[in-house]
Amino acid sequence: MRAYSGEKLCSRCFSKSIEDKVRATIAKYEMFEPTDKIVVAVSGGKDSVTLLHILVKIEKAFPMASLSVVTVDEGIRGYRDEALKYAINNCRKLGVEHVVTSFKELYDYSLDEIVEITSEMEGKEEGLTPCAYCGVLRRRALNLAARKTGANKLATAHNLDDEAQTILLNIFHGDALRIARVKPVLSEAHPKFVRRVKPLCEVPEKEIALYAYLKRIEFQSVPCPYATTALRSDIRTMLNRMEEKHAGIKFALVKSIEKIRPALEVVAEEIKLQSCVKCGEPAVGEICKPCQMLQKFGVR
Amino acid sequence: MRAYSGEKLCSRCFSKSIEDKVRATIAKYEMFEPTDKIVVAVSGGKDSVTLLHILVKIEKAFPMASLSVVTVDEGIRGYRDEALKYAINNCRKLGVEHVVTSFKELYDYSLDEIVEITSEMEGKEEGLTPCAYCGVLRRRALNLAARKTGANKLATAHNLDDEAQTILLNIFHGDALRIARVKPVLSEAHPKFVRRVKPLCEVPEKEIALYAYLKRIEFQSVPCPYATTALRSDIRTMLNRMEEKHAGIKFALVKSIEKIRPALEVVAEEIKLQSCVKCGEPAVGEICKPCQMLQKFGVR
Repeated sequence: MRAYSGEKLCSRCFSKSIEDKVRATIAKYEMFEPTDKIVVAVSGGKDSVTLLHILVKIEKAFPMASLSVVTVDEGIRGYRDEALKYAINNCRKLGVEHVVTSFKELYDYSLDEIVEITSEMEGKEEGLTPCAYCGVLRRRALNLAARKTGANKLATAHNLDDEAQTILLNIFHGDALRIARVKPVLSEAHPKFVRRVKPLCEVPEKEIALYAYLKRIEFQSVPCPYATTALRSDIRTMLNRMEEKHAGIKFALVKSIEKIRPALEVVAEEIKLQSCVKCGEPAVGEICKPCQMLQKFGVR
Repeated sequence: MRAYSGEKLCSRCFSKSIEDKVRATIAKYEMFEPTDKIVVAVSGGKDSVTLLHILVKIEKAFPMASLSVVTVDEGIRGYRDEALKYAINNCRKLGVEHVVTSFKELYDYSLDEIVEITSEMEGKEEGLTPCAYCGVLRRRALNLAARKTGANKLATAHNLDDEAQTILLNIFHGDALRIARVKPVLSEAHPKFVRRVKPLCEVPEKEIALYAYLKRIEFQSVPCPYATTALRSDIRTMLNRMEEKHAGIKFALVKSIEKIRPALEVVAEEIKLQSCVKCGEPAVGEICKPCQMLQKFGVR
């Protein structure tokens, strides 16, 4: 049963409702055009594999569009190598072209190695977590891979819970202006930026899990060994607790922020994207964040 | 000990630190001028009685300023009548002029009576809680009383916790634009609006309680019988839990919102205040909210 709507659905109707929801989200935010070259970011986890299954289904109605998959191998022993298998197997089953890129190949170091180097740096200057490095470098890797495959859209599997958590995380972090960037379609005025879309952004995490279970979708279910961002996980717990008592609150939160986003974007837009003087990729300021990071731990 | 700063203070230094904090907040947000006529909204509860004690202390350095108190008697049997005694006693002790106004006198009905009338209304149309009526009518009562005493500033005892809760409440309620109005100084472009200031807005609720205890300040400690706004109290619990694990998070939250407020105000300012066609008081739209409410349950 869906607490926020009171609906009781059989498994077939439930699955259809999820697919319809994704279709509606895509239409509402004009995520795709009939001739798009779409690349889906698939880690091998529940959300991204499910997104792939749903998009393959939807894409069948659009013969002019194309769909492929990219997986970023960050280099996390005992974790990503496992997930990668699930990504490969799902792509094979669905008959989707699959490109794998890696931190090692792009940046000369795997995340494991980066974590080792940076944890040795005295005082852990700026105290960056593995997730901070990984987030910046993975987004860059996805953008590079998407461009390489000639895609004009990059679909990621962020769900409703992710979006609600990120909004609160930004607010609690004293970074409320970043809310402007938590949205269903992210486009930047830079020729090298591939437009990012989030077709699952209105589907609760729990429902994706149920859909995946009903459809017998196989995915990696072990959590990342570096996933220790205490604040996000506390926010997740807190939001789940609130949702249990106040059904629909995650959705209300995201919708509420949608109302103020236009105002925030006016301010956020003043931050013009340039081209990084080192690598030519999109950058806020002279040097892009990935280059700043790589430079800091002596890779570039 | 203060978890967010690691300070350990004796009771004397602690009390002084609170008073200094309030002075700093007043200076930072330019809350008062040396010639202000200030009226303090005192309910008789911990926060407002403490605010009064601190402001009386601070005001001694400003002989050109004046300070008086207003209490709004909403008419809540067994609750406000008790609190009123504390308000009266504290004002007497401190030698401060005290005006009492009431819902009954202003609106012909006490809150108890309003709750009775509205709960009888079939279907509880729009489902307004007692707090919703009380909030709107109390703010109007305070503004009227402040103007009547000739004050140009109205000081209320909202603390850091209140502000953090209200911000999240607005976001969760789908009302994020209202964040623009959660701020230390609220002024409106209407000649009948008395500027509202919140000198305690940077002091955590816990520290106000400790200050009141150390200074042996007497106040009403029973909670309001109508205080059942489930969502706010869940947000309070949740924020306290987060603060315990992540010291300073309430402050970070409020500061974070400060960064986006200018952007929100640009949008919020487009809502121009008019004069209510019924009572002439400040109104968004033709008829002000208090008049709409009174009309709805047949009082006006």
